[in-house]
Amino acid sequence: MKVLVTGAAGMLGRKFCNQLATAGSIAGQKVRSLTMVDIVESPKIEAPFDVLSLAGDLTERGIAEQLIADHPDIILHSAAVVSGEAEVDFDKGYRINVDATRELFEAIRRASYHPRVVFTSSIAVFGAPFPEVIGEEFFSTPLTSYGAQKAIGELLLADYTRKGFFDGVGIRLPTICVRPGKPNRAASGFFSSIIREPLNGQEAILPVPDTVRHWFASPRSAIGFFFRAAEIGDAGLGTRRVLAMPGLSATVGEMIESLGRCAGSDRRKLIRRVPDPAIIKIVEGWPMALDASRAENLGFKAEANFDEIVRAHIEDEGIVVR
Amino acid sequence: MKVLVTGAAGMLGRKFCNQLATAGSIAGQKVRSLTMVDIVESPKIEAPFDVLSLAGDLTERGIAEQLIADHPDIILHSAAVVSGEAEVDFDKGYRINVDATRELFEAIRRASYHPRVVFTSSIAVFGAPFPEVIGEEFFSTPLTSYGAQKAIGELLLADYTRKGFFDGVGIRLPTICVRPGKPNRAASGFFSSIIREPLNGQEAILPVPDTVRHWFASPRSAIGFFFRAAEIGDAGLGTRRVLAMPGLSATVGEMIESLGRCAGSDRRKLIRRVPDPAIIKIVEGWPMALDASRAENLGFKAEANFDEIVRAHIEDEGIVVR
Repeated sequence: MKVLVTGAAGMLGRKFCNQLATAGSIAGQKVRSLTMVDIVESPKIEAPFDVLSLAGDLTERGIAEQLIADHPDIILHSAAVVSGEAEVDFDKGYRINVDATRELFEAIRRASYHPRVVFTSSIAVFGAPFPEVIGEEFFSTPLTSYGAQKAIGELLLADYTRKGFFDGVGIRLPTICVRPGKPNRAASGFFSSIIREPLNGQEAILPVPDTVRHWFASPRSAIGFFFRAAEIGDAGLGTRRVLAMPGLSATVGEMIESLGRCAGSDRRKLIRRVPDPAIIKIVEGWPMALDASRAENLGFKAEANFDEIVRAHIEDEGIVVR
Repeated sequence: MKVLVTGAAGMLGRKFCNQLATAGSIAGQKVRSLTMVDIVESPKIEAPFDVLSLAGDLTERGIAEQLIADHPDIILHSAAVVSGEAEVDFDKGYRINVDATRELFEAIRRASYHPRVVFTSSIAVFGAPFPEVIGEEFFSTPLTSYGAQKAIGELLLADYTRKGFFDGVGIRLPTICVRPGKPNRAASGFFSSIIREPLNGQEAILPVPDTVRHWFASPRSAIGFFFRAAEIGDAGLGTRRVLAMPGLSATVGEMIESLGRCAGSDRRKLIRRVPDPAIIKIVEGWPMALDASRAENLGFKAEANFDEIVRAHIEDEGIVVR
């Protein structure tokens, strides 16, 4: 198997490449080579196969062709400008999230072969008002440019697949939590920081009420989704190539209880409640839960409770809970 | 009011421009000028206001800017490569239906003003399987490139509107029937020809069973939709800028009965049944009916029965039924 990963320097891209190096195989076959591409240099990884790392912009002439030249069998397209940035920089969001996606898809089409393309979409394709549990056939009315761009990517993926240009699977990721690393300024950042910072003995700000409910999966589950999306056959998909990924619906209050159970109830005191009306308003427009039966029936798995998400973070990031 | 119409040489664009000339006003205000643009020269019209006709391709550099230069207040964007052609010529479909739409939207954004943009979408954004009546919140899983391109246009329209770049209203047209003119080779062409040709004393081929049910509105209703979309306020729309247009759900059998009632039962003998498995299969993927309550509540109106559609065709095309 030859594997290509776009967005390989991103949190999930990097974790996927590392997991690929550990596993040595994907979709039941040995990996022969991995090409990692991102706008910046991807981190070095040790792997039992050839690894090529490229820094480049998919919208630049020739880059997509170069990536497709050796006909990778599995392509994980996770490169994206994130939600906050796409909202601030409208042009950059469309350029990377739409144009670069189309450049990649076109390069595959021109190469006339038939790889599996895994496209990372997002629950941001949905916009309130919606039901408490969003059904598999609910429409996309995104409330951010990022959501609109991901919904456009989904349509392109399905159309290129229907036309036989490649074999696409789109996966709508839940909010990935707990994200390792430094706090970021995304509106959703607090979901990770209220767990991550207290585990490190640091204070975290909670800008929304404890009753806020949202839809989560761990980075570990996300990597599992990528592997599963690479290996599933066409059987269950038909012309509907985009799957809502399973996740876990939890309130902020439940998250904080998990933190206490997994790392000691004192940790909870490190969470400082500073309501932020702007963030409260944004979060009101976010999904609380999704029906992910299609993906579940195809073997996609996420955590069953938030304790598992906290423990996955502790294990995967090697955190010593004192 | 300054009005701009793209696709002005098309059947609906032309009818809209003529109706505008007759009415002399739109959205409660006098029309000062009309710019008609299409890839070919638009037909001349007599109007009580200035009419400028341009032949040009919106994807060519500078064309969109030129059209937006005098800040038209109302823009009807009906230019499109139709379904059959977009399926055969993948590149042309995306170039006209997606890229030209984006060029136009970008030109408006750069001009920094706030016109009403009416975007003609289609029930082709839906793909089977779907319920007998497709709800307002049903998802878009198009089974044609045309449908995918229209769904992308809808997402762009909503996002540009949300960002305040213009004031967009998308309208999902039913199959427009009876189309005047010559038979065309679109898979849906027979819906018009089984009425139009017998009214002209000519034979028509019916390639599907009489039980096939589909969703229709007359060209006259479509023009009414354009006018209504130009004048409605923002009140009911919020962030959901795309409306399913009202229509009429009828079976082929009911259409043929209408033909008999409106023009004499002998006309029905001019319909020759030649089942075409390919067309039968395509038509199975098409909507039978839509819930259009949102649009109806906003004052959009279509025919109540198929007799009205046949009579509208007879009147509007000046057909003498002997």
